[in-house]
Amino acid sequence: MTGDFAFCLLARDGAARRGRLTTAHGTVETPAFMPVGTAGTVKAMRPEDVAATGTEIILANTYHLMLRPGAERIAALGGLNRFMNWPRPILTDSGGFQVMSLAKLREIDEQGVTFRSHLDGARFALTPERSIEIQHLLGSDIAMAFDECTPFPAEEDEARRSMELSMRWAARAKSAYRPRPGHALFGIVQGGIYPALRRRSAAAVMEIGFDGYAVGGLAVGEGQERMLAVLDETMLALPADRPRYLMGVGKPADIIGAVRRGVDLFDCVLPTRSGRTAQAFTRRGMVNLRNARHSADPRPLDPDCACGTCRQYSRAYLHHLVRAREILAPMLLTAHNLRYYADLMADLRGAIERGRLEDLGAGIAARQEEGDIPPL
Amino acid sequence: MTGDFAFCLLARDGAARRGRLTTAHGTVETPAFMPVGTAGTVKAMRPEDVAATGTEIILANTYHLMLRPGAERIAALGGLNRFMNWPRPILTDSGGFQVMSLAKLREIDEQGVTFRSHLDGARFALTPERSIEIQHLLGSDIAMAFDECTPFPAEEDEARRSMELSMRWAARAKSAYRPRPGHALFGIVQGGIYPALRRRSAAAVMEIGFDGYAVGGLAVGEGQERMLAVLDETMLALPADRPRYLMGVGKPADIIGAVRRGVDLFDCVLPTRSGRTAQAFTRRGMVNLRNARHSADPRPLDPDCACGTCRQYSRAYLHHLVRAREILAPMLLTAHNLRYYADLMADLRGAIERGRLEDLGAGIAARQEEGDIPPL
Repeated sequence: MTGDFAFCLLARDGAARRGRLTTAHGTVETPAFMPVGTAGTVKAMRPEDVAATGTEIILANTYHLMLRPGAERIAALGGLNRFMNWPRPILTDSGGFQVMSLAKLREIDEQGVTFRSHLDGARFALTPERSIEIQHLLGSDIAMAFDECTPFPAEEDEARRSMELSMRWAARAKSAYRPRPGHALFGIVQGGIYPALRRRSAAAVMEIGFDGYAVGGLAVGEGQERMLAVLDETMLALPADRPRYLMGVGKPADIIGAVRRGVDLFDCVLPTRSGRTAQAFTRRGMVNLRNARHSADPRPLDPDCACGTCRQYSRAYLHHLVRAREILAPMLLTAHNLRYYADLMADLRGAIERGRLEDLGAGIAARQEEGDIPPL
Repeated sequence: MTGDFAFCLLARDGAARRGRLTTAHGTVETPAFMPVGTAGTVKAMRPEDVAATGTEIILANTYHLMLRPGAERIAALGGLNRFMNWPRPILTDSGGFQVMSLAKLREIDEQGVTFRSHLDGARFALTPERSIEIQHLLGSDIAMAFDECTPFPAEEDEARRSMELSMRWAARAKSAYRPRPGHALFGIVQGGIYPALRRRSAAAVMEIGFDGYAVGGLAVGEGQERMLAVLDETMLALPADRPRYLMGVGKPADIIGAVRRGVDLFDCVLPTRSGRTAQAFTRRGMVNLRNARHSADPRPLDPDCACGTCRQYSRAYLHHLVRAREILAPMLLTAHNLRYYADLMADLRGAIERGRLEDLGAGIAARQEEGDIPPL
């Protein structure tokens, strides 16, 4: 335990913020990206290799862990940090999003959600209180209030009904939460793409009062323009001294746009999932290592990257591993992608400190438009 | 390059030998076990993690690499060491065994073997000369003469015919081989389970003259007793000052029995393949991590093992990874199994140095009979 949960603002550049989170398991420099460790492992990565990418905090999924191996099991084994050998901060989601996207035979009422596991059909219930209890059992540094993920597209009436339910659930989550030093509970702003609903939801979660505030229900198909428009509305309505988390985002360009608008925390499966499907992020755009044009290329994936994959292996070797379906392919590509994201966040933090965020964003966009390094 | 290929005998204990190989890419303390890096990667392991287990030399498969990505491709990329980022010694097999066990539509004649790739049906030919050329292109420290793997069971006539073909091929391999400092060519003794054939084969390969001698065609179903009986015959017929390699072996008990009889080198897919199927080697016997009895067990896989898997993770966590089919399961279990094998070989080397090999062998057998640590 390293003392109380805290968020300090160190610098600003326009609406963008450079901050530092202090949690029970260490500090997190923000803006920060959280790799997703769904089932108690960031897929294809040892925890020490995750840390070596520059990652300081990961996200774990309440839904997956409650099904297997079970929250009580993890608690009996000393909590999630110890179970998965990750001694640094963990944020857990509430399970709400995954219940909506993965579980079977869902039934939602005022009380919560009942559903069947996508793994074996076993019956479970998730309520705001049970979600908080599970997150306590896991021992995460940052817990999230249980919400209903509003479908997209949704009419305004549907989005309002859903948001209001989430706000009532948020109040119950707050009541169920037992504060502990260094641990935090975040509330989630919902309201779909409707500015008035977002403002009302922001007011409601602030009225309940949380240690930080998340923006949920975005990056679900509405497009970057609408997403950033919602952020423009929502960020203004949130307190400046609390961390802000944009859930499930995202692509580098989305992250840059959101950082500009004052977001501090992000999570997304994109770098890890891409690493398992031969897709690599580079400073000149995406590279598909399955493509035959890499088969004899002795050059590194990204000549501007200092990760072990780029320092030690050729594109030809990575292509070979992908074609041969070797486990080392997702290992090396996931490590590279997480390093890409960690480097991006470090660049954003440095740019905010120097008041040069606009230059950096333009520079990254220009490099990505150049396309990948030309074939040999 | 570290100078000429050399084999020094440092100590003996009965027929067992403690030695040191010096190759172009470094030294190897013997008796040594070579993990198998079939397609240019020891599956689920980074090369630095392979080295961290105590492994000093790996085996790579000529057959797999000639099909994909191709020997000329690897040569153009700087050779196999550089391609796969393994700066230490590599032994390549000749391709003979895999052609017999994996390729389709094989046709064998005096010249060599033609076959179709098991990957895409493409047509290939492998001769003693082409096998050596491929191994030159790969740049392996130790190349093997191309042989026909005698099927088991085989009548004595069939075993004789096969052995004699392999001996003619061995002479052609020797002629095709271009000696380079620090690199070596090994011949292979064949002859099935027939002592007279093994003696004749040993005399034939010694007449041709190689830097080291392998025993092939064992561990193919003949059982440990017959295998050790063949070794008893064959080891006596081989020169004491050259390294001896028992191909494709094996289980810890087989290795101990063969070390007692004077074998210096081993390779087997067992530790790596087992790591991908939830099977772990421990000082108290095999453990199947898929078994539900591990699901809540906070203890390490092997309390007597100092590997990262045993120091950092519980059986419960490993069981969870196996059940969730997480890539981290083969990563952690392969690392443990390779460490088990490397520790076994280090124990054998230490016991030979102290003249206590019989005690060690009995001790290992007794511990394995105890069975795994009892359930909690």
